[in-house]
Amino acid sequence: MQIEIDKPILEYNQQLAEQNRMALSRENVLMINIMASPGAGKTSLILSTIERLKDRYRIAVIEGDIASDVDAQLVKAQGVAAVQINTGGACHLEAAMVAKALDALDLHQTDLVIVENVGNLVCPVEFDLGENLKVLILSIPEGDDKPLKYPSIFAEADAILLNKIDAADFFDFDQKAFADSVLRLNQSAPIFALSAKTGEGLDAWVGWLTDAAGAL
Amino acid sequence: MQIEIDKPILEYNQQLAEQNRMALSRENVLMINIMASPGAGKTSLILSTIERLKDRYRIAVIEGDIASDVDAQLVKAQGVAAVQINTGGACHLEAAMVAKALDALDLHQTDLVIVENVGNLVCPVEFDLGENLKVLILSIPEGDDKPLKYPSIFAEADAILLNKIDAADFFDFDQKAFADSVLRLNQSAPIFALSAKTGEGLDAWVGWLTDAAGAL
Repeated sequence: MQIEIDKPILEYNQQLAEQNRMALSRENVLMINIMASPGAGKTSLILSTIERLKDRYRIAVIEGDIASDVDAQLVKAQGVAAVQINTGGACHLEAAMVAKALDALDLHQTDLVIVENVGNLVCPVEFDLGENLKVLILSIPEGDDKPLKYPSIFAEADAILLNKIDAADFFDFDQKAFADSVLRLNQSAPIFALSAKTGEGLDAWVGWLTDAAGAL
Repeated sequence: MQIEIDKPILEYNQQLAEQNRMALSRENVLMINIMASPGAGKTSLILSTIERLKDRYRIAVIEGDIASDVDAQLVKAQGVAAVQINTGGACHLEAAMVAKALDALDLHQTDLVIVENVGNLVCPVEFDLGENLKVLILSIPEGDDKPLKYPSIFAEADAILLNKIDAADFFDFDQKAFADSVLRLNQSAPIFALSAKTGEGLDAWVGWLTDAAGAL
């Protein structure tokens, strides 16, 4: 009872992902792939991250959406290069879409590319985009049981951001149970509890990202 | 840049959906398909709805999840028949999965089947399950811009539940802007602002559902 994604599609995607990775590596650019449910706070997290890093790195953003370019407009308002990809119905980005977006950017003048994937905890994890790091955002109102329900994306993440921590008192989110569930799926990804809105906890995340960029 | 779902897959799904619809109609059963993002409150809404309707209707629940059966266990604890479907990775339910679940239920002894789809605002809307009504839940923390980003599911819904309204003061959710965006996509679906947690606004939704069941 599973939709099998055609193996040739995934193999073709993987080839293009490797090409993206090589193009980025040639220019010493770090690319991160931000994945989350709709409304978990991908765009606000990206905007807060840009705010803290824009004096240090030359940043570009690739915005994936089913429709609309509202997020790309928000990013451009921050004075950062942004390319919008409308997937026209597809529930995830693919390496081919990102390749076109990278072509539209001046990688030679870029240090960090932030990709905002389509809001979805299922499909995006299947498609390598050529990124260096996969970053998963879960928000407090979504509930602490999400690792049980969407194990693949928790298993694959290089870092997990627990957003809207300022709303922790309002929702019954058991951070200990959440961390335990994550640990059963993924022993290496750090969990950063933070609020893109209030700024709480952002330093640790930005520090981790800076370390990752430095390791390039 | 769109993944085309094979036409034969959708045509086959449509045939099975019609078979489901006929099987339900023969037994005078209403089936609703509940769709939402992960963590929007599908399970809590279903539990609150069961609480209010279980003395009036014989209810069964079909739980769709990528993995785990935590939701089905919660439903069964309410004394209601529940069938779990694990999609094993797929981001939506299909009519064939629901057909098997319906086989496992005694439809002759059932008035209302509530289907909880996989948490996702993209894929579920493509697949007719044979339901009478599509119900979309959006929760306040997800933000008021979601109709712009996920237009298809808002366009197809027969009713839209705006959940976690008790958190409205905490998040900057513009209900007027949200209603306007919905109206541009869908002129017929009512919007019920409610909280599955506090019970606020549930009467209007349950009344609407009761009217729909009465119209069968």
